[in-house]
Amino acid sequence: MTSTAALDNVSNLTVRLASRPQGEATVDNFALARESIPTPGDNEVLLRTIYLSLDPYMRGRMSEAESYAEPVPVGGIMEGGTVCEVIESHTDMVEVGDIVLAHTGWQEYAVASDKAVRTIDSTSAPISTALGVLGMPGFTAYAGLLQIGAPQPSETVVVAAAAGPVGSAVGQIAQLKGARAVGIAGGPEKVAYVKEELGFEVALDHRAPDFADSLAAATPEGIDVYFENVGGKVFDAVLPRMNEFGRIPVCGLVSQYDTTSLPAGPDRVPMLMSRILTKSLTVRGFIQREFVRAYYRDFLQDMRGWLAAGKIHYREDVVHGLENAPEAFLGMLRGENFGKLVVQVGDDPTASPPPATAAS
Amino acid sequence: MTSTAALDNVSNLTVRLASRPQGEATVDNFALARESIPTPGDNEVLLRTIYLSLDPYMRGRMSEAESYAEPVPVGGIMEGGTVCEVIESHTDMVEVGDIVLAHTGWQEYAVASDKAVRTIDSTSAPISTALGVLGMPGFTAYAGLLQIGAPQPSETVVVAAAAGPVGSAVGQIAQLKGARAVGIAGGPEKVAYVKEELGFEVALDHRAPDFADSLAAATPEGIDVYFENVGGKVFDAVLPRMNEFGRIPVCGLVSQYDTTSLPAGPDRVPMLMSRILTKSLTVRGFIQREFVRAYYRDFLQDMRGWLAAGKIHYREDVVHGLENAPEAFLGMLRGENFGKLVVQVGDDPTASPPPATAAS
Repeated sequence: MTSTAALDNVSNLTVRLASRPQGEATVDNFALARESIPTPGDNEVLLRTIYLSLDPYMRGRMSEAESYAEPVPVGGIMEGGTVCEVIESHTDMVEVGDIVLAHTGWQEYAVASDKAVRTIDSTSAPISTALGVLGMPGFTAYAGLLQIGAPQPSETVVVAAAAGPVGSAVGQIAQLKGARAVGIAGGPEKVAYVKEELGFEVALDHRAPDFADSLAAATPEGIDVYFENVGGKVFDAVLPRMNEFGRIPVCGLVSQYDTTSLPAGPDRVPMLMSRILTKSLTVRGFIQREFVRAYYRDFLQDMRGWLAAGKIHYREDVVHGLENAPEAFLGMLRGENFGKLVVQVGDDPTASPPPATAAS
Repeated sequence: MTSTAALDNVSNLTVRLASRPQGEATVDNFALARESIPTPGDNEVLLRTIYLSLDPYMRGRMSEAESYAEPVPVGGIMEGGTVCEVIESHTDMVEVGDIVLAHTGWQEYAVASDKAVRTIDSTSAPISTALGVLGMPGFTAYAGLLQIGAPQPSETVVVAAAAGPVGSAVGQIAQLKGARAVGIAGGPEKVAYVKEELGFEVALDHRAPDFADSLAAATPEGIDVYFENVGGKVFDAVLPRMNEFGRIPVCGLVSQYDTTSLPAGPDRVPMLMSRILTKSLTVRGFIQREFVRAYYRDFLQDMRGWLAAGKIHYREDVVHGLENAPEAFLGMLRGENFGKLVVQVGDDPTASPPPATAAS
């Protein structure tokens, strides 16, 4: 335990859910406040947030609709993964100064149980990657692609939001396994990044008027794996091209998160089911946590190896200041971010150039 | 090889596809004719059809819509599995008098390659069961339920068309594996059969006005496996009750085979995909043939054992005379059959009471 007297004149900026969105989420759904810094009890730690992850799933937590997790209550702190510094410790499990992965949400300071934090190795990669390529998004790609998609050499893998943290990892891992990756992104800048920097065999712009034709031309032997993280018109263009025994891991449907009613008819469920039947397709929803116990260790080992060997590239879109989180989050839902979106909430003591004196 | 001089004055009644259905299939889509009996060549056999199987998949073969198999050409013999007697053999692989499983379609006589027939053990079960509980429908149930549905003890398995050849086997196998089987059928007679003779834990009538409520009451702990062979409103009632990690093997969609256009909106595909995502569901189309190599031997061994032990019951609905096949087939699509529908096309030399003299 260490004194936190230095915090006496510091407050805790928080972002709470002010109201549930009706249709498209807006900044009015969020409430910023300055609150007092909480006090840790036994077996707890006080954390200072360095990075906050912003991810599409958070849109689901803002709504009351039934999902795989409880919604954030109105008035509650917005949920989210964080990389934090331990600034007060009432446990033997972590020490003051440790950098930990936590799930303390949209706030500058938080108390957490020692069981709810995991120490991050801050020497091998920037600590922010624990929220991206070496964290939940990277693991979502790794587990969903390899355990459900199971791409075989020379098969065709299609993924949307290919410039994003999940899609970029999906396509690169697919190619490392010998498959052809076809990435779909929005706008020429992202398309160029997917093709040239990430090395996907093909990159397509879903905003192009001839998108469906381009997809057909890019998949002359059909599609074996479609990693679904978007929904909507990309899915519509992909489905007719799925090969027999094709696999569709479904990890997100960001294009429909803001919708409050179903689109106009006809009802295409019979068409979808018929396609699943006649092509012997597998459509499998998943949340990465189901694979953590069995595959997280493999993931960290593989992904660290690929990063070290320069075989996987990633990009971060860093927004500075928690007060800018709501606007950045809403922009992400509109596809405006470019790379894994993180908010730098406080100073990163591990960042280079190194701070003048690392020890305090 | 044996002389077939006895056939000199016999013709071959055939049923050909006269035209493709526009919407609901009708008897006008079929053409009956008396044709000459074909002549087998080297490594071929001449077969006399004893039983013809009528199955929902045949409706798909009547249409040009893309499916997992080529359609029957207009003017072609209607496709179908058969149990036949070998009446002329130009091969060492089968002998005259052998009873074989073949796929010679809707006709009284046919020539087949010796590689396209499989001898049936006619001592352990009625030979017609090679088209039902010990044949393709039974194997569809066995493979789809166990390999995709994978029911665990005390889980809830729901199946529609539960009085039919596939559904009845699905529910009984599920209960043999320790799961709870909830069967759905049309009308009180079938419902009583499913509950009392097949021993499903629950049987429900999908025609009842309170069907969805009854299904909810019958599945208080939700649904873990829904074996989909019907589609439509049963699927709609089942989907909201699927548990996390639920499995939906899709082997048929008989309720929609006659439709030529999609139902009115709204488009519920986003709802279905969202449900798949939030509940981590697996929806998997399949055709039984993909499992033949790995599991057919196990199936025959298990199913023969269950039949011998009285643990699996089945029912056949036998129509006499090939000329009645079109009407019987159309009735099956409307749910009017009760049990596995087979057409007895010719005399069954193995049937009891035994024929006066079996040898000729």
